[in-house]
Amino acid sequence: MSTTTYDALAATWARLHHLSHLQSIASWDQAALMPPKGMEARAAALAEMAALLHRMRTDPALPDRLARAEQEPLDDAQRANLSEMRRQWRLSNALPEQLVQRHQLASSRCEHAWRTQRPANDWPGFVENFREMLAIGREEASLLAAESGLGRYEALMDRYEPGMTTRRLDAIFGEVRRWLPGLIQRVMARQARETLVQPQGPFAIDRQRLLCEQVMRLLGFDFEGGRLDVSTHPFCGGVPEDVRMTTRFAEHEFIGSLMGTVHETGHGRYEQNLPREWLGQPLAEARSMAIHESQSLSFEMQLGQHPGFVRQLAPRVAAAFGDQPAFEPANLHRLITRVAPGFIRVDADEVTYPAHIILRYKIERALIEGEIEAEDIPALWDARMMELLGLDTRGNFKDGPLQDVHWPEGLFGYFPCYSLGAMYAAQWFAAIRRAMPDLDTRIDRGDFTPVFDWLRENIWHQASRWSTDELARRASGEVLNPVHFKAHLETRYLGA
Amino acid sequence: MSTTTYDALAATWARLHHLSHLQSIASWDQAALMPPKGMEARAAALAEMAALLHRMRTDPALPDRLARAEQEPLDDAQRANLSEMRRQWRLSNALPEQLVQRHQLASSRCEHAWRTQRPANDWPGFVENFREMLAIGREEASLLAAESGLGRYEALMDRYEPGMTTRRLDAIFGEVRRWLPGLIQRVMARQARETLVQPQGPFAIDRQRLLCEQVMRLLGFDFEGGRLDVSTHPFCGGVPEDVRMTTRFAEHEFIGSLMGTVHETGHGRYEQNLPREWLGQPLAEARSMAIHESQSLSFEMQLGQHPGFVRQLAPRVAAAFGDQPAFEPANLHRLITRVAPGFIRVDADEVTYPAHIILRYKIERALIEGEIEAEDIPALWDARMMELLGLDTRGNFKDGPLQDVHWPEGLFGYFPCYSLGAMYAAQWFAAIRRAMPDLDTRIDRGDFTPVFDWLRENIWHQASRWSTDELARRASGEVLNPVHFKAHLETRYLGA
Repeated sequence: MSTTTYDALAATWARLHHLSHLQSIASWDQAALMPPKGMEARAAALAEMAALLHRMRTDPALPDRLARAEQEPLDDAQRANLSEMRRQWRLSNALPEQLVQRHQLASSRCEHAWRTQRPANDWPGFVENFREMLAIGREEASLLAAESGLGRYEALMDRYEPGMTTRRLDAIFGEVRRWLPGLIQRVMARQARETLVQPQGPFAIDRQRLLCEQVMRLLGFDFEGGRLDVSTHPFCGGVPEDVRMTTRFAEHEFIGSLMGTVHETGHGRYEQNLPREWLGQPLAEARSMAIHESQSLSFEMQLGQHPGFVRQLAPRVAAAFGDQPAFEPANLHRLITRVAPGFIRVDADEVTYPAHIILRYKIERALIEGEIEAEDIPALWDARMMELLGLDTRGNFKDGPLQDVHWPEGLFGYFPCYSLGAMYAAQWFAAIRRAMPDLDTRIDRGDFTPVFDWLRENIWHQASRWSTDELARRASGEVLNPVHFKAHLETRYLGA
Repeated sequence: MSTTTYDALAATWARLHHLSHLQSIASWDQAALMPPKGMEARAAALAEMAALLHRMRTDPALPDRLARAEQEPLDDAQRANLSEMRRQWRLSNALPEQLVQRHQLASSRCEHAWRTQRPANDWPGFVENFREMLAIGREEASLLAAESGLGRYEALMDRYEPGMTTRRLDAIFGEVRRWLPGLIQRVMARQARETLVQPQGPFAIDRQRLLCEQVMRLLGFDFEGGRLDVSTHPFCGGVPEDVRMTTRFAEHEFIGSLMGTVHETGHGRYEQNLPREWLGQPLAEARSMAIHESQSLSFEMQLGQHPGFVRQLAPRVAAAFGDQPAFEPANLHRLITRVAPGFIRVDADEVTYPAHIILRYKIERALIEGEIEAEDIPALWDARMMELLGLDTRGNFKDGPLQDVHWPEGLFGYFPCYSLGAMYAAQWFAAIRRAMPDLDTRIDRGDFTPVFDWLRENIWHQASRWSTDELARRASGEVLNPVHFKAHLETRYLGA
């Protein structure tokens, strides 16, 4: 029995998968459970592991092996897997180990400090750590840009959204900026005529938790292969075989946490349904972060804010907290789909949401390209928030630039994926409706299986088998087309 | 600036410490939180890490480096650290990587299956997995014995209790077997005359948890550097910087879980108080498992069952569950110190406990030395339980050989450490009393600081600075002397 070079590479990637597993669980634990004094040791442990994984991914023997494997007789899936290996090698090889370790240490420190700096509104304290994080981000951008020929910010974004360019993004976001302010105005004017009954709290946290778990089950989350816990910034972590979702609860308000959980459940189901027969290989990984967000937003926005879904939600909410006029399905739907400019991105409705992303994109791109410094963020933030949403955020850092975990963690280039994901989600639902004209009737009846079946077949099981453009084309007949997003908003919010 | 070989070795061990951190947290998670479908992937991940750590510990460059470092000018602490490095290298180097990985995989599988096999009383199902675990244990024993010149079982035990021999152990346990049955009879006869009021349940689990956390605080556990969670088999895991204790709760009974928590808190404080300036180096690790158990048993038995401690416990128990006649301090003390032969080791009182250990020692030593097979365990178990404690366990596997996690995990040679620990604990308290004749008065007043101060100075901060015998000599003036254990039992239970 002879082993091919391809097989040897696959074994290397399986080892990477095993070791990354420990890194993922420890990172999740750090965010969800770890007591404060564990911080330094955990940061050191994760940095050690990051360096080790980096060393494995940049093994000097790899380029030759990749080249030899490309000459071997492989089937199409193996060839796609090999090309993803090369992509990962390329991204890793552009960065020296010492920089990777520096990133890991700095982001652990910066994120950990941010947890207390945010509630304390401590912008100067944050900037002190963040300067190092930004310096690292810029260095990564330069190295990745030099390797790929992309622009500096583009090169960072390419790690999350391969193939997306700033030119394409500028076109998409430029278009959105043209119609968004007008749309927000029209929707708000229309909604101002609605009667809205507010829920009366408090909402016991243990009841909220049970409700969230119930809704996760309704959405098909497999608790035999995952958990729901609590963290400051909700996320979906862990590994495909053991998905660790987090949320956060507040006693005075339950909708944010509930819909946040619906959002993360979309991520969770994508991970839980990646092709098992390929698990451990790059081919079995989620395609890109915009595609990942298209799953969370298919769940949270397309399905989760659908009147038929909210009709399923209403009796469960009433059972959890006791019946209230606010929980009447039509009123609950009005509450969940209420459009109002606000400070917090993760609490934003789907209409104003793109404004939050455009703002962050502009700022982080300028940061990475060296046009502005960390100190310039608040002024720019204030100006953009006023311009896009008419909100004054001066001095309110905790609900301003301190609100997201991305910058403390050095995740520059990620934000655009959220809005691209919202656009893809609208595109998926347009495709499902074309294939199944009675989709809305079925959702109205509480039957969500058509959605899950379509996503499983077209997105989840495809994983990284195709490029993002090809995945979109196969699933929906076209590459990303933001027209579906605009149409979705107009239909849902203006009854157009 | 020149770096010594010793410094390079210290850096290697710091890396091992960082990577082991991830292994510890993932192992804790596996036992406390992991959903069932995560099992295979976690087992593979931990096996990969075990192999990696093993490879680092058996780096062919190490023998030469260790030899060169021994020629360098080092202070006594560095020399002790170096000698612990050599010990770890020696233990690792005796086992091939493939066997280490096989152990890790088999123990993950066997332990995971055992979790459901135990409640199902499924001995045949267990044996099927356990055969492989035993085969691995025997292979490890042969390899370690060949390397060290020790006996096969002895060589396994040496990993947990360096320096302890089967000859010494046979002498100690032989002596205990002479006086134990008579002592049990006398204690039971005496206790038969006592009036005992039983607590009336149920005891709400959330109240039990709060009570346990309160008592952990009373015992000085630092929650800023650790947590309490739930697992099938309580243990103290994690890392010194982030200690993860577990317990288990049952609604009908609270004392077992409470005193189990007191036990694990002893382990936890040892870990939390290992010398921080040496953290990451072998010198900063706990001395041995018998010394570790001497800490948990100093907490659970010496201090935890002291009338003065129980007096502190009583009002807290009453506050947790509502006042009851059973919670009157003297009655609570009688409940906690009640002696009665029982099936379950971890629930056993300190008088009958050694019988459980002697039984396991005899069986696992015969298993490892090839005198018996896995299939022979139940008959031997039954015979010994009848002989030592007069209990019939036939057919009751779940409360018999399926009760402990040690064999499913392949931890052969560990059990003796529990009874050695109980003996060391009695020896420590005898030493504290010699140094501080009013110790009992102070404990009666609720002042436990003399105990914590003595343990911190003599045990916790010493870590692996000395051999176990030398540690005992420095702390108490003599090496392990089981006479203190017998005297302790006679004083507490016969008022001698």
